[in-house]
Amino acid sequence: MIPHDSIVALATPSGAGAIAVIRISGEDAITIGNTVFRSIKNKELTTQKTHTLHLGHIIDDTKTLDEVLVSIFKGPNSYTGENTIEISCHGSTYIQQQIIQLLLRKGCRMADPGEFTLRAFLNGKLDLSQAEAVADLISSDNEASHQIAMQQMRGGFSNEIAKLREELLNFASLIELELDFAEEDVEFADRTQFHELLNRIEFVLKRLIDSFAVGNVIKNGIPVAIVGEPNVGKSTLLNALLNEERAIVSEIAGTTRDTIEDELVIGGIGFRFIDTAGIRETEDVVESIGIRKTFEKIEQAQVVLYLFESLKFKVQSSEYIIEIEKIKNQFPLKPLVVVINKIDLLSENEILNIRKQLETLSIKLETISAKENIGVENLKNQLLSFVNTGALRNNETIVTNTRHYDSLLKALDEIQKVKFGLETNLSSDLMALDIKEALYHFGMITGQVTNDELLGNIFANFCIGK
Amino acid sequence: MIPHDSIVALATPSGAGAIAVIRISGEDAITIGNTVFRSIKNKELTTQKTHTLHLGHIIDDTKTLDEVLVSIFKGPNSYTGENTIEISCHGSTYIQQQIIQLLLRKGCRMADPGEFTLRAFLNGKLDLSQAEAVADLISSDNEASHQIAMQQMRGGFSNEIAKLREELLNFASLIELELDFAEEDVEFADRTQFHELLNRIEFVLKRLIDSFAVGNVIKNGIPVAIVGEPNVGKSTLLNALLNEERAIVSEIAGTTRDTIEDELVIGGIGFRFIDTAGIRETEDVVESIGIRKTFEKIEQAQVVLYLFESLKFKVQSSEYIIEIEKIKNQFPLKPLVVVINKIDLLSENEILNIRKQLETLSIKLETISAKENIGVENLKNQLLSFVNTGALRNNETIVTNTRHYDSLLKALDEIQKVKFGLETNLSSDLMALDIKEALYHFGMITGQVTNDELLGNIFANFCIGK
Repeated sequence: MIPHDSIVALATPSGAGAIAVIRISGEDAITIGNTVFRSIKNKELTTQKTHTLHLGHIIDDTKTLDEVLVSIFKGPNSYTGENTIEISCHGSTYIQQQIIQLLLRKGCRMADPGEFTLRAFLNGKLDLSQAEAVADLISSDNEASHQIAMQQMRGGFSNEIAKLREELLNFASLIELELDFAEEDVEFADRTQFHELLNRIEFVLKRLIDSFAVGNVIKNGIPVAIVGEPNVGKSTLLNALLNEERAIVSEIAGTTRDTIEDELVIGGIGFRFIDTAGIRETEDVVESIGIRKTFEKIEQAQVVLYLFESLKFKVQSSEYIIEIEKIKNQFPLKPLVVVINKIDLLSENEILNIRKQLETLSIKLETISAKENIGVENLKNQLLSFVNTGALRNNETIVTNTRHYDSLLKALDEIQKVKFGLETNLSSDLMALDIKEALYHFGMITGQVTNDELLGNIFANFCIGK
Repeated sequence: MIPHDSIVALATPSGAGAIAVIRISGEDAITIGNTVFRSIKNKELTTQKTHTLHLGHIIDDTKTLDEVLVSIFKGPNSYTGENTIEISCHGSTYIQQQIIQLLLRKGCRMADPGEFTLRAFLNGKLDLSQAEAVADLISSDNEASHQIAMQQMRGGFSNEIAKLREELLNFASLIELELDFAEEDVEFADRTQFHELLNRIEFVLKRLIDSFAVGNVIKNGIPVAIVGEPNVGKSTLLNALLNEERAIVSEIAGTTRDTIEDELVIGGIGFRFIDTAGIRETEDVVESIGIRKTFEKIEQAQVVLYLFESLKFKVQSSEYIIEIEKIKNQFPLKPLVVVINKIDLLSENEILNIRKQLETLSIKLETISAKENIGVENLKNQLLSFVNTGALRNNETIVTNTRHYDSLLKALDEIQKVKFGLETNLSSDLMALDIKEALYHFGMITGQVTNDELLGNIFANFCIGK
């Protein structure tokens, strides 16, 4: 039940720009476009080749709405797989509205969020995980998340799943066949080979499931708690970390983004910095609430940076060491880095002394001068070392989507049941049921198995026009 | 000295959307595009036909940045007149930045604001007034300003000027010829015909100059002062006026704009409503400052709406009439409309009574119920009646650009000098100088006469990417 009506939406961001693109897809997209378009060369859109561009005017009755360029894509050679046209018009909101209203009057309807991609999926242009990657790609704001989304969109992930599913399907049909010949007690499916396949599937599933931890981190950014007294220089530190990245961004006019105070991209990975108040011991009720909050925030973080000022640290080092130990004891498994700022104010001996103290506690130390840009590069590398980017570097498949993660877990569960069944000589008919379940969960990832509710949920999160 | 380097810019609004378009123009645009594009069909962009679309990937070294569609336009058949490609990529800010950075490394440079249109002008694709209309078109936010910009972009205005300039140029050369034969005292230029031409030019110039009043109003909106005591229902009135327009806008998801409290488009014309505090007579110093401010705001407005509440007006009508007269006396030439709200609370007789009182003062009355939507349509028509939209309806040329207005005034001045010279038998050589001046000002409008500073000023006001 693929719909055949024609949908229209603005495909570019709303607001004024040099140009805007309005997209129409559906059986009648080109015919409808032709009713409102007058080519400067008197060409009819309906007789033009696919993948061609045409200059002309959008005419509403006798009124000229705009001079536009129209792109023609004939199904199945289009994004959606249907006939599609894209109208590239001048970027005034007024013009965009007028053209869309005109197209609505001519028989189009407003596209739902993600409906163009939904149609691409329904028409077999993309599988479901590829379609989901489109939304990830659009929202990607750093190199790592972009790379993973690109890979997923190009089918890296679903190819792997689909291949395993096919192999499993082969065995499933052999086992089903055995059921038909149950009374003759034959084995069509080679049990050794089957066991080998199950092991292989289990290995791949476990690897994909494990990759979700990295994937999730990359997609959502790594939360880093910055612990430190007020005025210790947290924002100077963030600025120093941000420095290089920002320089690149601001070179390109028109693409600068609003300042994001506490989200930085370092080495292609997003880091989210969470400010905390520090944990100085106190009898003041208000302050001890502050300490509890600091602990809560550290709880949410994956890495803790404890920031000090060099001269203060020199004077109060024993007090500070106690505080550091307190965090270390409270969160023994959480990576903790002590960062001492304004390091240019200490002598080499003094630094060495501090370093020794912390080494006995097995705590990493980074000494920096945010102002003089000393040690900032080392700190960045330190932060990156906490991310297992091996998979990323080796271009391995990384799962970032909670829905996929969920299906993988369920598939693994079923595969392990099948394996256990095989090892305990479970009857073929019961094993066949478990295999079917596993196949179902594989299919949920690629979209070979699907339902309206699932599709509704997935595409509702898309933007309109995609 | 048309530049030949290749410029690049984002052509769609910045921010995230389904897609974004990056535009490159210049002699090497297609060659540069080809170095970063890998077609899925292994086609080279450089060997493709103009006005065709190609699916493929943008590759940075070994890294795939995005799956994109590339449009090819070969000069002179492009917007700029040069080789141009447009890369339609996924709408993530990260991807936009990466692709633009890559193109910068490959030899493009960031386009200045309006540089694509400047090149279109330099390559003779548009004259100067058409180029200016492009910016007007992009910023047009209502039907009237859109219509005028469209007409200007399609050359309506500059055609008229260019035609007159040519006729004048003919006579100028005949008169120059006379100078060459000065001693023989011949007249190549028929003085009667010349006089007739000057009259015609004068007539056209005056009409265009007059149209600027309308054009300015349409471009900037008509300022309307709303006078009235606090809580008399000013915002209810604005909402009622806005009602229909907003309903249309909100139907189209993704194209709604932020609420603009005091700017409304009525019948395709923009109105700017200026709130004032009213002018109740008082001995309080603070309040009398308020009255002075109200008068200042009325001064700036082209129309005054004086808003009352029906029941209050009934009780205090004589006091209110005095206030109305005061405004009428202060601004005798400014259209004043008394608007009485909540009219459903008065009897027909009471309304008739008020109407009679105001009629004797020659003041227009509109009775409305903003809540019940009574009389709102009449009030809209009343507001529209103050705008001379005749020229607009008859599709006449309307001047909206201050620069054009200025040149037209100067040209008129010179034409009148020439005419006076002709009537007083001024020597041909002196007349020739005045004609030359007039030709210069005509040329400034269409861009046949130009200079770098002028072009710089004009295109600096464009957005980047256009």
